[in-house]
Amino acid sequence: MVGINEDYDKLEGGYLFPEIGRIVGKFLERNPGTNVLKLGIGNTSEPLTPAVIEGLERGVKNLADVKTYRGYGDEQGEKRLREAIANNYNHRGIELDVSEIFVSDGAKPDSANIQSIFGAGNIAVQDPSYPVYVDTNVIAGRTGKFNKVTSQYEDIIYMPCNVENNFFPDVPEEKADLIYLCNPNNPTGTVATKNQLKTFVDYAIENEAVIIYDAAYQAFITDPKLPRSIYEVPEAKDCAIEINSFSKSHGFTGVRLGWSVVPKDLVVENTEPGKVNSLWNRRQTTFFNGASNIAQEGGIAALSEKGLKESQGLVNYYLRNGEIIKEGVESLGLKAYGGAPYIWMETPDKMPSWEFFDKLLEESYVVGTPGAGFGPSGEGFFRLSPHGHREDIEKAVESIVYNLKL
Amino acid sequence: MVGINEDYDKLEGGYLFPEIGRIVGKFLERNPGTNVLKLGIGNTSEPLTPAVIEGLERGVKNLADVKTYRGYGDEQGEKRLREAIANNYNHRGIELDVSEIFVSDGAKPDSANIQSIFGAGNIAVQDPSYPVYVDTNVIAGRTGKFNKVTSQYEDIIYMPCNVENNFFPDVPEEKADLIYLCNPNNPTGTVATKNQLKTFVDYAIENEAVIIYDAAYQAFITDPKLPRSIYEVPEAKDCAIEINSFSKSHGFTGVRLGWSVVPKDLVVENTEPGKVNSLWNRRQTTFFNGASNIAQEGGIAALSEKGLKESQGLVNYYLRNGEIIKEGVESLGLKAYGGAPYIWMETPDKMPSWEFFDKLLEESYVVGTPGAGFGPSGEGFFRLSPHGHREDIEKAVESIVYNLKL
Repeated sequence: MVGINEDYDKLEGGYLFPEIGRIVGKFLERNPGTNVLKLGIGNTSEPLTPAVIEGLERGVKNLADVKTYRGYGDEQGEKRLREAIANNYNHRGIELDVSEIFVSDGAKPDSANIQSIFGAGNIAVQDPSYPVYVDTNVIAGRTGKFNKVTSQYEDIIYMPCNVENNFFPDVPEEKADLIYLCNPNNPTGTVATKNQLKTFVDYAIENEAVIIYDAAYQAFITDPKLPRSIYEVPEAKDCAIEINSFSKSHGFTGVRLGWSVVPKDLVVENTEPGKVNSLWNRRQTTFFNGASNIAQEGGIAALSEKGLKESQGLVNYYLRNGEIIKEGVESLGLKAYGGAPYIWMETPDKMPSWEFFDKLLEESYVVGTPGAGFGPSGEGFFRLSPHGHREDIEKAVESIVYNLKL
Repeated sequence: MVGINEDYDKLEGGYLFPEIGRIVGKFLERNPGTNVLKLGIGNTSEPLTPAVIEGLERGVKNLADVKTYRGYGDEQGEKRLREAIANNYNHRGIELDVSEIFVSDGAKPDSANIQSIFGAGNIAVQDPSYPVYVDTNVIAGRTGKFNKVTSQYEDIIYMPCNVENNFFPDVPEEKADLIYLCNPNNPTGTVATKNQLKTFVDYAIENEAVIIYDAAYQAFITDPKLPRSIYEVPEAKDCAIEINSFSKSHGFTGVRLGWSVVPKDLVVENTEPGKVNSLWNRRQTTFFNGASNIAQEGGIAALSEKGLKESQGLVNYYLRNGEIIKEGVESLGLKAYGGAPYIWMETPDKMPSWEFFDKLLEESYVVGTPGAGFGPSGEGFFRLSPHGHREDIEKAVESIVYNLKL
C-alpha cells in the first residue's frame, strides 16, 4: 500500500500565483465583464524582437528538412548556446568553462530542483522571497511545520528584508547551509551592491554553505557599478550556483529557456572539486531531456549583438512602466521601492496585504500580489509588476490613483 | 556545513546513454574518420511533417505580434492542447476530464518526477526497463545499495521479462507499491495484451499499489486488438497514471512535448479521490513552468486530422526500418524480438552484452545498446533502434551482416 509524500501536506495553501488566478476568477464570476487590470504575475507582454523571431524561425525550419533536422540534443544544452552564454560572462570579466553551464527550460525549474542534489541542512531565505525556494524545500522535507502565528515554516532561517536594511539582509546569526539570494530581488525590485554580496560569499565560505543565487532579473540593473552576476565577487566560484533566465529580459516567459552555472570549484562537505558540478549533470541527464531545440535557437539569436541590443529596448520599456507605476503610487502619498523591475509598495496604514489585494481589486479592478505571499516580512507590502502594455499600465495606474479609497 | 544527496552515490555509473556516447567518442579518437552507424539511442531522424511545421511556425509568428503574443501559460498546458489530447482518448472510448491531463516537456521528465509525489514504498520494475525508473528511485532514496553480484539494487522488485514469458512479467509475489510498466516496451519492443495489463490492474487494486504506465511508444502498436492505453482496462483509472509523448510518434524528440494522465479516481493510502491528481498539480505548478508555447502549438497541429495522418507515415517508416533490422539479424541465425519499435536481439552464444557492444562497434562500426544497461535480465540481449534514415539503417544492417565475425 503506497502513501503520498506527506511533506506536501505541510504546505500552507496552493502555489501563490495559481491561487491568485483562482481568486480573480471568482471576482470575475461575481462581476462579469469587468476589465481587470493585471499588475500581478510578472508576465511579459511585448512581442519577441526581430532577431529572436529569426532565430526561432530558423529553429523550426531546421526541423522541416531532413538535412538539418535534429532530435535529442545534449541534456546540458547545445554547445553553441553554452558558448554564447560563457562569452557573455567573459565580457564582464568572468571566466566560465562550458561544462559549468547547464541550459534549462527556465529559472523556475532550476531554482526548484537545485536543492535535490544536496543533503539535509538548514536553508536560509530572504524574507520576502520568491515562493519556489521555500515550497520546494518544504516538499523535500528540509523544514518543519507551518506556524500560523509567525507565518513561518519551522527550521527555515528567514532573513528579513525591510526599509531599515534597504531590503538586503544581514548574514544570519545561525548556521545556514543552503542560502537563497535573489538579485535584483523578487519581489522587492531592489538591487544589491558588490559589498553586500561579498558579505554572503564570505559567510558561505566560512560556514561551508552554498549560495543559490537567482539572477533572473539581472538585465534590469541600470547602474554599471552594481554587480550583474555573483561571480563578480571572485570567491563566489567556491560557494555559489547562479541561476539565470531568458524570460524577463528577452520575453521568453512562454518560450521557456534559462541556464544555471555550477562551478567546478564549488565544494561541499567531504567532496572533491567538480563533484557538485557532476551531481547536477547527473540530475539533469536523468530527470531532464534538454530545453526545446527551437527555444535554444532563439536563445542563440538573443545573445547575438543584434539580439542583445534589441532586448535592451524591451528592458527599457518595462523599466519605464515601473517608473510610471512608482510615480502613481507615490502621488497617493504611499511609499514605493524597487524598480528592477518590480515595484514594492507599502500598503496604506500598514493594511494587511491580502486585505489590500481585495481592496485594490474591488475598488480599482487592479490585480497585484500581496507581500505576505512572499513571506512574513512581506506583510504590509504589495508587489506591482511592470510587465504589461504601456496603455494598460497607464490605465491601471490611473485607476489606482482615481478609484482607490484612501 | 552542507553535504550532497548521498543517494546519488548509490548509482552504479552514469546515466546509460551519455555513458555510451562517451565510449563511442573514445572509439572515434582511436579510429578517426570512421563512419559509425548509430542504432543506439532511439533518436528520430526524419523531419517533422508539414502540419506540425505549420503549427510550430504559427507558434513563432504569434510571438512576433503584440496582438497574439503570450507569455506564461498554465503550467498544466494550454486548454486547447489538453482538449485535443482528451478527444484523442475519447475516440478510443476513454473519457478523461482535461483536469486529469497535464502537458509536460516530455515523457522522460514525467516518468522521472512522478515518484516524488509518493511516500516510501517498494518499487517494481520490468527487467529489463528504461533506466530512468530505477535511477530516479535510487536518487529519491527508495532503494538500497547496488549489488555487483546480482547487478540489482536492493529493495527493488525486478520482474524478469524473457523469452519464456514473451517479455511480459507475471505480477510480483512480493507486495509492490509503485509498479512501472512500459508498453510497448522499451527496450524489448514487445506489446502487451489487454489481459496481460489487466493482471497488473487487478494486482494494483488488490494491493493498493499505483501503476506508472509509460505509453510513449503506443503509436507503434499495429494490431488494433492490442491496447494503446492502460485505461482500455476500465478499472485502471483507480490505480494507474499514464505517461505519454509526442517524441517518437511525431518526431518531437528535440521539440520536447508530452503529457501525463492522473485520474481523479486514483486513490492511495488514506487519501480521498482527487488527492493524487492535486498533488501532481501542486508538483507541476511549483517545479515546472509549462512546456514551450511554440511546442504546444506544434502538438495541437500534430493531433489534428492532417497531423495524425502524416505522423502515421513517420511511424510506418520507422516500423519498416525495424523490419529491415530484424531480417538482417535473423539472416545471421540470431534470434530477434520486438519491433514496436525497438529490436531486441539475442547476442551470439549468450555473449555478455557490453562485450557484444564492443565487438559490434569494432567489427561493424555499429552502435547499439547493451541489454545489461536496462537491468540484469537484459544480459545476453542487445537493443537496436530503428530510428534513422533508411539508407543508414540499410548500411548498418549490411555492415552487421557482412562484417560481424560469428
